[in-house]
Amino acid sequence: MEPHSKALIAPKVVALVGVSDNPAKLTARPFQFSRKHGFGGKIYIVNPRREMVLGETAYPSVSAIPDRVDHAYILLGTNLVEGALDDCIAAGVAVVTVLADGFAEAGAEGQARQARLIAKANEAGIMLIGPNSMGVVNSETGFACTTNAAFKADHLLPGRVAVLSHSGSLIGTLLSRGTQRNIGFSHFVSLGNEAQSCVGRTGLALVDSPEIDGFVLFLETMRNPEIFTRFARAAQQRGKPIVAYMLGKSREGQALSVSHTGALTGEAEALRAFLRHNHIAEVSQLDALFEAPALLLQRGRLENRPATATVITTTGGGGAMMVDQLSLRGVTLAGPSADTAAYFAENNIPFGSGKLVDVTLAGAQYDIMKAAIAQLITDPETGVLVVAIGSSAQFNPELAVKPIIDAIRENPGAAPVAAFPLPHAPESMQMLQSADVPTFGSVESAADSVALMLSRYTEPKVTPVGGDASRKAIEDILQNAAPSKNMLLDEVTASRIFSALGADHPKQVFVTDLDNPDEIIVSVDKAGLSYPMVAKLVSPDLPHKTDYGAVTLHIESPAMLVRAVTTMRRNVRRTLPDVVINGVLVQQLELGIGEALIGLRRDNLVGPVITVGAGGVLAEIYRDVAIRPAPVSIDTAKEMIDEVRGFALLRGYRGQPAADCDALAQLVSALSGLAAYPAIAEAEVNPVLVQRDGVMMLDALIRLAAEGAAG
Amino acid sequence: MEPHSKALIAPKVVALVGVSDNPAKLTARPFQFSRKHGFGGKIYIVNPRREMVLGETAYPSVSAIPDRVDHAYILLGTNLVEGALDDCIAAGVAVVTVLADGFAEAGAEGQARQARLIAKANEAGIMLIGPNSMGVVNSETGFACTTNAAFKADHLLPGRVAVLSHSGSLIGTLLSRGTQRNIGFSHFVSLGNEAQSCVGRTGLALVDSPEIDGFVLFLETMRNPEIFTRFARAAQQRGKPIVAYMLGKSREGQALSVSHTGALTGEAEALRAFLRHNHIAEVSQLDALFEAPALLLQRGRLENRPATATVITTTGGGGAMMVDQLSLRGVTLAGPSADTAAYFAENNIPFGSGKLVDVTLAGAQYDIMKAAIAQLITDPETGVLVVAIGSSAQFNPELAVKPIIDAIRENPGAAPVAAFPLPHAPESMQMLQSADVPTFGSVESAADSVALMLSRYTEPKVTPVGGDASRKAIEDILQNAAPSKNMLLDEVTASRIFSALGADHPKQVFVTDLDNPDEIIVSVDKAGLSYPMVAKLVSPDLPHKTDYGAVTLHIESPAMLVRAVTTMRRNVRRTLPDVVINGVLVQQLELGIGEALIGLRRDNLVGPVITVGAGGVLAEIYRDVAIRPAPVSIDTAKEMIDEVRGFALLRGYRGQPAADCDALAQLVSALSGLAAYPAIAEAEVNPVLVQRDGVMMLDALIRLAAEGAAG
Repeated sequence: MEPHSKALIAPKVVALVGVSDNPAKLTARPFQFSRKHGFGGKIYIVNPRREMVLGETAYPSVSAIPDRVDHAYILLGTNLVEGALDDCIAAGVAVVTVLADGFAEAGAEGQARQARLIAKANEAGIMLIGPNSMGVVNSETGFACTTNAAFKADHLLPGRVAVLSHSGSLIGTLLSRGTQRNIGFSHFVSLGNEAQSCVGRTGLALVDSPEIDGFVLFLETMRNPEIFTRFARAAQQRGKPIVAYMLGKSREGQALSVSHTGALTGEAEALRAFLRHNHIAEVSQLDALFEAPALLLQRGRLENRPATATVITTTGGGGAMMVDQLSLRGVTLAGPSADTAAYFAENNIPFGSGKLVDVTLAGAQYDIMKAAIAQLITDPETGVLVVAIGSSAQFNPELAVKPIIDAIRENPGAAPVAAFPLPHAPESMQMLQSADVPTFGSVESAADSVALMLSRYTEPKVTPVGGDASRKAIEDILQNAAPSKNMLLDEVTASRIFSALGADHPKQVFVTDLDNPDEIIVSVDKAGLSYPMVAKLVSPDLPHKTDYGAVTLHIESPAMLVRAVTTMRRNVRRTLPDVVINGVLVQQLELGIGEALIGLRRDNLVGPVITVGAGGVLAEIYRDVAIRPAPVSIDTAKEMIDEVRGFALLRGYRGQPAADCDALAQLVSALSGLAAYPAIAEAEVNPVLVQRDGVMMLDALIRLAAEGAAG
Repeated sequence: MEPHSKALIAPKVVALVGVSDNPAKLTARPFQFSRKHGFGGKIYIVNPRREMVLGETAYPSVSAIPDRVDHAYILLGTNLVEGALDDCIAAGVAVVTVLADGFAEAGAEGQARQARLIAKANEAGIMLIGPNSMGVVNSETGFACTTNAAFKADHLLPGRVAVLSHSGSLIGTLLSRGTQRNIGFSHFVSLGNEAQSCVGRTGLALVDSPEIDGFVLFLETMRNPEIFTRFARAAQQRGKPIVAYMLGKSREGQALSVSHTGALTGEAEALRAFLRHNHIAEVSQLDALFEAPALLLQRGRLENRPATATVITTTGGGGAMMVDQLSLRGVTLAGPSADTAAYFAENNIPFGSGKLVDVTLAGAQYDIMKAAIAQLITDPETGVLVVAIGSSAQFNPELAVKPIIDAIRENPGAAPVAAFPLPHAPESMQMLQSADVPTFGSVESAADSVALMLSRYTEPKVTPVGGDASRKAIEDILQNAAPSKNMLLDEVTASRIFSALGADHPKQVFVTDLDNPDEIIVSVDKAGLSYPMVAKLVSPDLPHKTDYGAVTLHIESPAMLVRAVTTMRRNVRRTLPDVVINGVLVQQLELGIGEALIGLRRDNLVGPVITVGAGGVLAEIYRDVAIRPAPVSIDTAKEMIDEVRGFALLRGYRGQPAADCDALAQLVSALSGLAAYPAIAEAEVNPVLVQRDGVMMLDALIRLAAEGAAG
């Protein structure tokens, strides 16, 4: 375990710095809440202006405390934080949590303030939580070192899942809503600006805690993707699921995340891909954030079982609603197997005709329901069993849930079961939960959770195609590259880099002497090109060539070629008189089954991501792209290609021949390897022609990182 | 009001037919529940096998009851239902509700049984609810004539919204979950198979009830779209909102709806368009089904206000979550206006910087929060104000919600307010609800409801383009049409119908003598066509011509034309040796900015629908189509065209010239008018070439209805 772990969540000696003597004030809460929840450790109050605060001796400073402090919570105003931190450092405190805002989210001055905080903490080897943190809570020990009003609750339910949240208010929301559903949490950490301790570092500090079986994250941004990845991998290796709710899914939400937290904005889809890549179960419903973990903890029971859900119900409408919501989330529904159908028929248990096992009101009898559940969960063809419990759950919990609980108890290691009572049925919910049956308060949360349980995460294999041979070649090209003002390489240079990765392009020739028509025709002949051809002007200043009339397709003859060059030069000069034109690239016209685009970008939040989509305007209009953190293996590239709907055309649409998707996957993986060159900020091949046999890049773009980073 | 209305929901005399003397049996429930909830009317029990049932005198038949019965609930098994209905008819009962299943959903025998039920009821002028109905409830009078166990509740909350549900179990779910949120309903009707009284007819019977301000529908199918439309229009005219939850949104859900209810399946998108067209607020979250009505009832307050939402909060994370969810649902977010920002600044109320009005913890003070809310709701630039209330809602309701309530009370007629407490805060919820402030238990339900409140329904103007002139022409063509075995018209005939609607096609000629090459060339010349041209074989047996190689594009010369005809005939004959080829249609090649498809179909559930989408494979792969009940006006057609993302190309993408979308709208409206010809089962123009000036149909298809219906 991380050295700071104990001091973070299980301190023995705590200092509260800046507690008000007014019990109604915010700063009085950590003391009040910790006392209320029976914290057994020592709490020292620091307040230089008073001798007694809230009936306790107050100390003038942390250093003055006659005890070694594990964890200090600084509750002072922004301007007093640095001094208090110095005091904590002098006193040898291990973990310091800071409440005040006014740091990274507050302009240049705040950012400088935050940088100083980080430097001090790092130098002293202190773990710093916040600033802008509503504190840290341990439900078991009653360490309720938080300013969040929700912890005024009479009782903190125990739990085995820890909450890490960027938002301080959300820890209260989760406590309150969880309690109402009888779901407790082991710990709460409000991360605030995560100046030093990001969610990944905090998670790593906790991942080995034997009190923690899993994590719940409320994310507003992603500050340290590498550390987050380490945390995610550690949790995965220990079989501890991580469930996350992500803010900023919408355009407006993203805009807010910038102003609210001072964080950078990334692309929501890139962040989502990053989370999935790291085996994080991202929920769409807030309730699923606290309801999903119990089900995900039973993932092991799915071993050797199909990735399907079977819904059983006594109430057709309710069961159908569940089937509908699961199906909308892409879950494969399974009806009863042949064996189970035979068993049901033999025992006169009704089960309907479709994929919903509707035992009707007959299932409101203990014996029938128990037999039906036992049969289904012991059937090796059942994946996860979802029980939609009818109205009896409200007034007859014994009748409604006892058969479910007994069937599960008598068949240990059988298929996992998720229970959703249709009515408001707190007593039934509690009985199920006490028997370790995951329960759900809404059909949407249940469907979210079941879908996440069944989603198969493939182990990320990050070895891209290509190797040392291409590495040397690419580095040479980059060394000698002369990018434009906006750091673009011209097409010929870009194309050389892609060629080094093994990408084919059409037979082509680059002609620089454009004023001599004969020279153009001779060059084309010499290079062995045949008509029809395509010609485009080469210039680092022209990323969108078609927009400027700098591309000519279907050139059928030498005369047309000469005419095309003249016309294109005139087109461009008309709009951009000062443009530098390096020459014209003439390519033999190639035909294929479809087009694709492949792009590598560096996302602000999660770093390099690779994108594959249908070519042309489709990717843009329909956002029909697959995205992954780069680099990717060929297998992942194939998975990405499968996700793009527009590639239906490549897969052999309506009996047409299929294109070479394997070659496309090869290129995607190879291109994703450019993530390893810090000099390259962005690379795009658009379009790639996907042919029956092979792929061919028709247009390529590389943008280098701003000066200094390059080379 | 409908003559049966009173007997349906406010009967004075009730007969329960087939009540068991065993109080634990299902059939005892309507009696027990009605007594429990203080029903003041008379209840007679019918049971020919006993003199006393549940301590009451039992009558051998309904006819033997010494009173005029308003409403009878038949609780008998399937086989006894018809006899009991006869008995009710003889006794002059006005409304009969039937519990038993085994009718339309139970094969041919059940369907015949149901048909007899309908015939008897119609002949006698009885209103029949069910079969497969869990009954009818009036919360006000305590008439709880239902077998649903949830009505065992101690108390039925009063309410002013009526529930009509296909599913019987869902009326219990809504009662139970609504009660938990302090939301009551005026009535519940479980419609079951709606053999005679569909949701529309039942709704029409209730729409004038002064006790009902709105409706909540749980829909599994749509049986009588015309009657439903009448109900929807009546409700709209009376300002009574209708909120609906629709089952069968997914493929699996649709499959179930067939097996579960014996209903036909339609296309989910068509049903959804039909609901929207009828001003039904379709929710995606089940909770919104009972939470949305309160907000929709305040729609009038949005008059003269923008269709935007402003979110105010004391808790950044929670407010941001609300903004995110609203934005995801397409809601336009508005920050504070200049006036409001000035007011806030003047009064030292923090409000953040983005579109979220974040008053921070300062807003946990009564004066500040009240002033902030009052300012926002009286600002004419505010649409709906959404308040995301922080942790204080749980333990300090006075502090958290009183300022909201007081600000609203002191500013009657101001902007509507929706309240969402982040924690579980029943007391705050109740205070808000008592003050008539719509409250929401989840961020998703709140966002659903606000989005529905802001969605602008345009009045359906159903006058399509075209008129009597085309009517005569089309009827003549249909009279003389000779469809293929699968009822398809050949392309030339179809094209004549579309021409009668005013649709242009390229300059073309139809050549029937294909064995004479000279004849083909001469015909083309005579018709004044110029190269390049397109040729396609005309045959009613070839709907997908390209799949059979029966289309040739880019014909540049007479020789190519002759060759094309020979090749196409050989192509087709190879796969379909017996195909009838009527001739070849030669068209001058036209170029346009983009392609579209327009289709008219008759949906199984909701009748004729018109579809517009991007041409080619886009519509199919991306389901990028707009759909409406047909016919549509030009205005609606324009709205549809705006919805199709792929039409970005037509709207002038990346500085390219825009296409003539008005002409496209004209054609959509004209084609939608074919809905009025019962002989036409299906009509499609695919593709339509959309040019800079005008549109041109390149391929057309018309399928007639099966024999008998035609002509």
